[in-house]
Amino acid sequence: MNAPVPPQLPPDEVFDWLDAEAEKRAGAGLTRKLRPRPAVDHELDLAGNDYLGLARDKRVAGAAAAAALRWGAGATGSRTGSGSLELHTELEHELARFCGAQAALVFSSGFTANLGAITALSGADAAIVTDKHLHPALIEGCRLSRADVAAVAHATPSAIKHALATRRKPRALVVTDAVFSADGDLAALGELAGACRAHGAALLVNDALGFGVLGEGGRGAVHAAGLAGAPDVVTTVTLANSLGAQGGAVLGPRRVIRHLAESARSFLFDTALAPGSAAAALAALGVLRAEPALAAKAIDAAGNIAGHLKAAGFRVELPEAAVVSVRVPSPEVAVSWAEACAEQGVRVGCLRPPSVPDGVCRLRITARADLTESDVDKAVKVLSATAPHGATS
Amino acid sequence: MNAPVPPQLPPDEVFDWLDAEAEKRAGAGLTRKLRPRPAVDHELDLAGNDYLGLARDKRVAGAAAAAALRWGAGATGSRTGSGSLELHTELEHELARFCGAQAALVFSSGFTANLGAITALSGADAAIVTDKHLHPALIEGCRLSRADVAAVAHATPSAIKHALATRRKPRALVVTDAVFSADGDLAALGELAGACRAHGAALLVNDALGFGVLGEGGRGAVHAAGLAGAPDVVTTVTLANSLGAQGGAVLGPRRVIRHLAESARSFLFDTALAPGSAAAALAALGVLRAEPALAAKAIDAAGNIAGHLKAAGFRVELPEAAVVSVRVPSPEVAVSWAEACAEQGVRVGCLRPPSVPDGVCRLRITARADLTESDVDKAVKVLSATAPHGATS
Ligand SMILES: Cc1ncc(COP(=O)(O)O)c(C=O)c1O
Ligand SMILES: Cc1ncc(COP(=O)(O)O)c(C=O)c1O
Repeated sequence: MNAPVPPQLPPDEVFDWLDAEAEKRAGAGLTRKLRPRPAVDHELDLAGNDYLGLARDKRVAGAAAAAALRWGAGATGSRTGSGSLELHTELEHELARFCGAQAALVFSSGFTANLGAITALSGADAAIVTDKHLHPALIEGCRLSRADVAAVAHATPSAIKHALATRRKPRALVVTDAVFSADGDLAALGELAGACRAHGAALLVNDALGFGVLGEGGRGAVHAAGLAGAPDVVTTVTLANSLGAQGGAVLGPRRVIRHLAESARSFLFDTALAPGSAAAALAALGVLRAEPALAAKAIDAAGNIAGHLKAAGFRVELPEAAVVSVRVPSPEVAVSWAEACAEQGVRVGCLRPPSVPDGVCRLRITARADLTESDVDKAVKVLSATAPHGATS
Repeated sequence: MNAPVPPQLPPDEVFDWLDAEAEKRAGAGLTRKLRPRPAVDHELDLAGNDYLGLARDKRVAGAAAAAALRWGAGATGSRTGSGSLELHTELEHELARFCGAQAALVFSSGFTANLGAITALSGADAAIVTDKHLHPALIEGCRLSRADVAAVAHATPSAIKHALATRRKPRALVVTDAVFSADGDLAALGELAGACRAHGAALLVNDALGFGVLGEGGRGAVHAAGLAGAPDVVTTVTLANSLGAQGGAVLGPRRVIRHLAESARSFLFDTALAPGSAAAALAALGVLRAEPALAAKAIDAAGNIAGHLKAAGFRVELPEAAVVSVRVPSPEVAVSWAEACAEQGVRVGCLRPPSVPDGVCRLRITARADLTESDVDKAVKVLSATAPHGATS
């Protein structure tokens, strides 16, 4: 077999293929523009993930500032080098205690926490069984894992069971979101845990959208499902959503945490979380403990927004957590609707491929615990006034 | 074909295999313990990557603190959601300007920057050609890429050329570290760029160890090689080493940066870098501009330490950047030597599998621009006094 002769390209044509890719995206309505915001911003922000409104809370931002001055701007090394701080240990301890897990490990992001947990708990000897609506960050982890991966129909525990029963690998890991990011619907965690137990599998739950808003005082979906502390369940969270900071964590049995700290490559080969972000997450956890009603406020606001939008005829699922999804006929419509909202001072999110598992575009409206009634009114009014043809069912 | 019947395991035995893995690691001398440090720490830290001593510089830590108060503790969303701040744009602009690139894109870590750049610039139609000593973070990116990956003998440009010439894919990407982390040696960037140009390939250089210390005023290895601004070269950096902050960035042609912002999954599906970390990196860049001699100070300190250790008979390579590697006969010896140093107040790094590409363990001693002569003396004295049998050649 002869290899084909590789092309001879002048250096300035080596990346010409990227222009063709950009044209393809433009043709499909999938161009993405970054819209940087100023520090003082007068839009009503319903596009972020700061569900509890803590990112700018003085206790949280103040803790970040104090930690930068006390510990330094960065951690200066990986966690196994000189980057482990007592601050990380304290945050890990508090996260585990709050969620009812044996132990926790802090990563630099939810993205790397999920990569680390999925890859280190599976491998070539394992089968991974997931739901097709899994968040793209977790799909990356599955791809990287070298495991056999079966992604089954959304919200179909029987398909998960079947895939577990017919797997060709001895070990198995079921990977799921607790709250799916496309529609904000809940996974049937109890049933999934039962399926795992019937088939000798472990369960990994990404609670990025549930932590801080679901369960008793925001303890998350795993706690709400009665699975906190279970010996066969592992939870991942981001510290960037409800806690308003940056970073991620894995919670679970002590031996799982130890295994990750010694072998997860996205833990070992990455600088430790910055002191300011760790301290902010710790302070936010303290706020959540002191004000357990915050969690329900975010959910109530989401239900409120969704109820109004549903009544107005939009294609809305009733939300289980803080995010509300509105189905939109095309990416172009999604973008122009979101832009029209922004022009009227309301920033909403826009989900297009590859952010949606089924190709269906959505607007995402994120509630926050600190939204006022007039914020909710404004959001509903602006969404209705700018609604494109075809947005109501 | 019948699938094997999966094992029936009680829930508390599902993770038993992790104990077996832990025993294997213990048997091979590969147990890793986290040793959290306090905020005020009296050890001489030669295990971190804060080459310029900027993590605790008041200008840098102060900028992190001010930004947390002004912008909030977290960015509250992904860069394509509500997480893009004018602060990120300013940092991107300054990074590109400093390094002589057309444009830059900030990620939440060097890890995710490398994952994003490698995957989005390769893919199933591409061949990736790398050096076997590539940093593990980049190996993850190659694994995730779906490209044909050829990892050739270390520091052998002829092997890179051969792999490029015999590839079976039309596109090709050569991926290399500028400074290899195992031994601190330099890649032959000019020769690699030539090989790429002869074979229609793009060059991706990870300058995690060179940025801030190599090149004019710390502009990095790519700048030093005369490749800054080249249309076929892309550079990745971490903001956590020389800049003392957290985060990562990709620098390169405008169309590459645009492509990454629209398609790199570790960019799209990850919360934007926290304001404090972005501001710290920006402030550190300002310090580096104002004090261009800092870069050379770190390198001089490394050369100084290495020279003393070589004279004492240790197996040391003369360093090209700020890290000095000392070969050690076994992982057990590496750990006990590092522990003996720590007992005498000197913290050094310890490289064992999977952190070393060739299975050879090393102590890593990291120099900093702010080391005093007495720090260097102390380091050399303690390393010599605690040296295990077999450490000298
Ligand atoms: C729904 C969701 N959003 C975002 C993320 C990314 O978390 P982070 O932004 O902390 O990387 C995750 C986790 O991977 C997630 O599941
Ligand atoms: C030598 C080296 N260290 C560390 C890292 C990780 O960077 P960060 O710690 O910012 O994720 C990289 C980049 O992936 C690297 O190449």
